[in-house]
Amino acid sequence: MAQPSTEELITRVLAGEISALSRAITLIESSNPNHFAKANEIINACLPHANKSIRIGITGVPGVGKSTFIEAFGKHLSSQGKKIAVLTIDPSSSISHGSILGDKTRMEELAKDPNAYVRPSASGETLGGVARKTRETIILCEAAGFDTIIIETVGVGQSETAVHSMVDFFLLLQIAGAGDELQGIKRGIMEMADAIVINKSDGDNIPKTTQAKTELSRALHLFPSKKSGWIPLATTCSAKTHDGIAEIEQIISKYIELTKSNGYFDTKRVEQNEFWLLETIHNQLQQDFYTNSEIQDLLEKTKKAVQNNEYSPFAAAQLLLETYFKNKP
Amino acid sequence: MAQPSTEELITRVLAGEISALSRAITLIESSNPNHFAKANEIINACLPHANKSIRIGITGVPGVGKSTFIEAFGKHLSSQGKKIAVLTIDPSSSISHGSILGDKTRMEELAKDPNAYVRPSASGETLGGVARKTRETIILCEAAGFDTIIIETVGVGQSETAVHSMVDFFLLLQIAGAGDELQGIKRGIMEMADAIVINKSDGDNIPKTTQAKTELSRALHLFPSKKSGWIPLATTCSAKTHDGIAEIEQIISKYIELTKSNGYFDTKRVEQNEFWLLETIHNQLQQDFYTNSEIQDLLEKTKKAVQNNEYSPFAAAQLLLETYFKNKP
Repeated sequence: MAQPSTEELITRVLAGEISALSRAITLIESSNPNHFAKANEIINACLPHANKSIRIGITGVPGVGKSTFIEAFGKHLSSQGKKIAVLTIDPSSSISHGSILGDKTRMEELAKDPNAYVRPSASGETLGGVARKTRETIILCEAAGFDTIIIETVGVGQSETAVHSMVDFFLLLQIAGAGDELQGIKRGIMEMADAIVINKSDGDNIPKTTQAKTELSRALHLFPSKKSGWIPLATTCSAKTHDGIAEIEQIISKYIELTKSNGYFDTKRVEQNEFWLLETIHNQLQQDFYTNSEIQDLLEKTKKAVQNNEYSPFAAAQLLLETYFKNKP
Repeated sequence: MAQPSTEELITRVLAGEISALSRAITLIESSNPNHFAKANEIINACLPHANKSIRIGITGVPGVGKSTFIEAFGKHLSSQGKKIAVLTIDPSSSISHGSILGDKTRMEELAKDPNAYVRPSASGETLGGVARKTRETIILCEAAGFDTIIIETVGVGQSETAVHSMVDFFLLLQIAGAGDELQGIKRGIMEMADAIVINKSDGDNIPKTTQAKTELSRALHLFPSKKSGWIPLATTCSAKTHDGIAEIEQIISKYIELTKSNGYFDTKRVEQNEFWLLETIHNQLQQDFYTNSEIQDLLEKTKKAVQNNEYSPFAAAQLLLETYFKNKP
């Protein structure tokens, strides 16, 4: 079967054709250099039609019920006529080529919904690579007419910071545990959250989740105020019974309303674009340094000298930088 | 008056002579390139005699009584025969050439104590520069025989992260307020703290500080556990009446005992050295990029193009990097 031309692919993506969208995302994810120019052309054509959705990040450690939650939440949005794209960032798949999210991300119920598009984890050599592909996939999904983009990630590793830097609203999903609500969660995630949702609030579990909600509300109250002007809150839901799911949509709507009226919504997107521009530059500068063959040899020796108190870290850095720059104009 | 030779200066610093120490620190702080080689020579000679102290970081917003607290705490340590050096990092002085800490950092009582050495804020163009000077000053103070190094900074801006990366124990000083214990504190600082001390716990204020201690203890309990194995705690003190000051020393001693026995103390110092080595390299790589004249012109244009959705951040980064590297081998 002949590949459609880039122009044709763009037209179809903009018309909201799912098979074309999937094909375009595959091009973006491709590590084949022959695909790079085509991928860039598609992104540039989609950019003017993007940026109109609400982007929601959802994180939580394995076992809190992220997929079930996203299914319930996505179905709720779909029933209101919204178009939802679900993307996942799974750092384990890029590092170990295994996957923490695994089969559970398939969300088969939601995937069958004509208003929803579920795309499994982008893979890549580095978190930076995965983040880039996810960011560009968001643009394609928006250009294809999706008005709500959900980015799922696991609450371990470093992907939360990346996801936090590409969404409008960041939701931390938890379950009520024996006093250790936050065990296993990376430090700092709680402070990033715009809302903490305690899932599995059904049946005998309700007293425990209600108690967890009270404790977390108290803790959130102690954090410094956010630039958004929004006060993060804790709430409960059951992805199984759908109790509390509608309320979460209302919370997010209130957040969007507040931040659109105080200007933070747009400011944050401008800052996020700048963040990714600079982040990409800094990563590539470091990559050029660390892949320099002279540096690779010298770096290990220098690290040892620092640990043996033969050099201060600053003197050692100076030595490495002189070596690196001596061949550059 | 003739300047002492570098060799003589080193001998005197190692003998614990305060005037020589001050002179050596001034050399390190100097931005005169003629002093760089001399400064490096001194640091290299001091390195084998350094690293034997306990390094304590103290932060808190203006008004919590940091200077009074450090005076009380320093006098207590001195009364036990300890030798204390107090250094300050004041980000405002490097940015605005004004100082938030201002005159209050003088700590005249402690400065008169023969067991104590108080050195006001290092100044510099960048936080990185200030951090470097402070790190190297720690080495000189340790080589001069100080067994406790206190680094003071204000709980605003970015200096806390820098200080956190150069100390063994990080203490956040607060006062009890109207439910807003953390107002004005930068996000993330609470998570960095090994202890939160609520100051001004005297007279009529005691019920309020006791209440704040309970609330903060509860909040700290909700944080994920620390790599050190230490459970951060909240406590009260009065720098005025000295109530609770001895207890703080005991808390720090317990922390040191725990982390020395589980190996974290040494691991952390190794990691901190590596952090500063890499941090210095990354900063200089970026500086070389941003000071490139072609880049300076192009960067502003590119940022605008990204904000107008003409380029994705990644495509824009690629364009800038190609320009930067095209003249490099």
